[in-house]
Amino acid sequence: MGKWSDGKKEMLKADISLVSDTSMIAADIPSITTGLRGLAYWQVEVTGPNRDLHSGLFGGTVANPINVLCSMIDKMVDEKGKITIPGFYDDVVEISRQERQLLAKAPFDEEAYKQAIDVEKLSGEAGYSPMERTGIRPSFDVCGIWGGYTGEGAKTVLPSKAWAKISTRLVPNQDHEKVAGMFADYFQQIAPKSVKVVVTPLHGGQGYVCPIDLPAYQAAEKAYTDVFGKRPVPVRSGGSIPIISTFEEILGIKSVLMGFGLESDAIHSPNENYPLEQFFNGIKTIPLFYKYFAEMAI
Amino acid sequence: MGKWSDGKKEMLKADISLVSDTSMIAADIPSITTGLRGLAYWQVEVTGPNRDLHSGLFGGTVANPINVLCSMIDKMVDEKGKITIPGFYDDVVEISRQERQLLAKAPFDEEAYKQAIDVEKLSGEAGYSPMERTGIRPSFDVCGIWGGYTGEGAKTVLPSKAWAKISTRLVPNQDHEKVAGMFADYFQQIAPKSVKVVVTPLHGGQGYVCPIDLPAYQAAEKAYTDVFGKRPVPVRSGGSIPIISTFEEILGIKSVLMGFGLESDAIHSPNENYPLEQFFNGIKTIPLFYKYFAEMAI
Repeated sequence: MGKWSDGKKEMLKADISLVSDTSMIAADIPSITTGLRGLAYWQVEVTGPNRDLHSGLFGGTVANPINVLCSMIDKMVDEKGKITIPGFYDDVVEISRQERQLLAKAPFDEEAYKQAIDVEKLSGEAGYSPMERTGIRPSFDVCGIWGGYTGEGAKTVLPSKAWAKISTRLVPNQDHEKVAGMFADYFQQIAPKSVKVVVTPLHGGQGYVCPIDLPAYQAAEKAYTDVFGKRPVPVRSGGSIPIISTFEEILGIKSVLMGFGLESDAIHSPNENYPLEQFFNGIKTIPLFYKYFAEMAI
Repeated sequence: MGKWSDGKKEMLKADISLVSDTSMIAADIPSITTGLRGLAYWQVEVTGPNRDLHSGLFGGTVANPINVLCSMIDKMVDEKGKITIPGFYDDVVEISRQERQLLAKAPFDEEAYKQAIDVEKLSGEAGYSPMERTGIRPSFDVCGIWGGYTGEGAKTVLPSKAWAKISTRLVPNQDHEKVAGMFADYFQQIAPKSVKVVVTPLHGGQGYVCPIDLPAYQAAEKAYTDVFGKRPVPVRSGGSIPIISTFEEILGIKSVLMGFGLESDAIHSPNENYPLEQFFNGIKTIPLFYKYFAEMAI
């Protein structure tokens, strides 16, 4: 980050940053996000033969890049839901039993959660609750995959190439650049000699934690309590907002994440929406934060 | 096949069928295809959550249908290259050591083969040669796969659905309808409860064998010898021509596969082509077949 001169930093000097890009547990259960996961995101390309082949004439003797890509992706997570990249968990901060007990106080209705997304069973890393798996633990998701014939009906092709967009969510203190390197090395290492593999990093960001004894957090807490009539619950979010850790790194300031989204907003999905009630409650809450934070700072 | 009345069969009565839809080993190594693989082909759909989710907020707790599909595909073939569907090999005719020795006489230059498709290493079922893997053994290929975000750059989505087009090539005496049922059962059985799976059969056909002591085969052999100056080699092809087994089943006749394609034709690929020399040699060979076959039949 050498491009940031002291002059630029001076121009952006601030006591705190306030970002509204997060959600609450529910309209009647206010919460403030105190942690964000980091992110490392790649595109991978697996090449088998130099052209699409007839799957009858070559199938069985020539490695199929889709079969191989599927197998490589499957190897990335073991049967206990642990990511298998060597060294991946080395820098993960294990959270104390006491703090896990605190986090477990956030209300969570597993049946309602499953019903909302219509799944019969949740899944993930053994030994952690559903909310811990998204809040305090890393995760591994394939965000997109494509290759071969994808039109109507049957075409008997053994394709030349297959691609995937792969992401890991990271937790404090994992470094996204270090993870990006580990992933690229491991993905090359597990590739059979029958294919060629290219890994391209697409995106990355560090995780973030906002301590609940920070004056700005306490000012936000008071503001929510005034508007929603309840003390907000501190929660760790599974999402990433990479600029938050960049603010901390370059400007040396913390951020308070005062977001008013709801799970029903369907973010990043078709029919994304936002209720007017949350919009107006946000308009009431944020000025109160400025009032209380200014009083504390005096 | 009850829709085939005796009247229709009478109208299509024939001593033999002659089909030109196969290849020769090389322009100077004539060969006649004596076996075809069967085919069973499906589309599978794996559904996780009922809508695309934010991979940060849900990743780690909700099963990702792409991750799951990759894992299920990987389970279909074991580390020795054997297809894992229970009962899949029950009806496979094992070929005698003597017949394998005969088939091994067909010239095969592994280095040239690898170089033509630019792969460093071939792959496939342990215990069989590259040509046996496509000629006398079944194979499992994913012909297409898609799901999630496949555009430019990074989108952090945990998708609702993933799809694949999956095929197996079959050998005598595997029945494609029996295999289609076995696959559907197994694919449902290995699906975790965190997803829903739909299997749709798209296509199927039986394998075929033409005995080399068949008079029609011997007439074809003489015709090739006249035109190419060499006795043609009998070979098993990895491809499928489903109507050949239908001719046998309904009309009770064998087929002779007199094709003049070359590996360099790039069939089912971009820049498919056909050399004029092979076209003209075919025009010379086929009338000679009719001549010799008619003489034998008298």
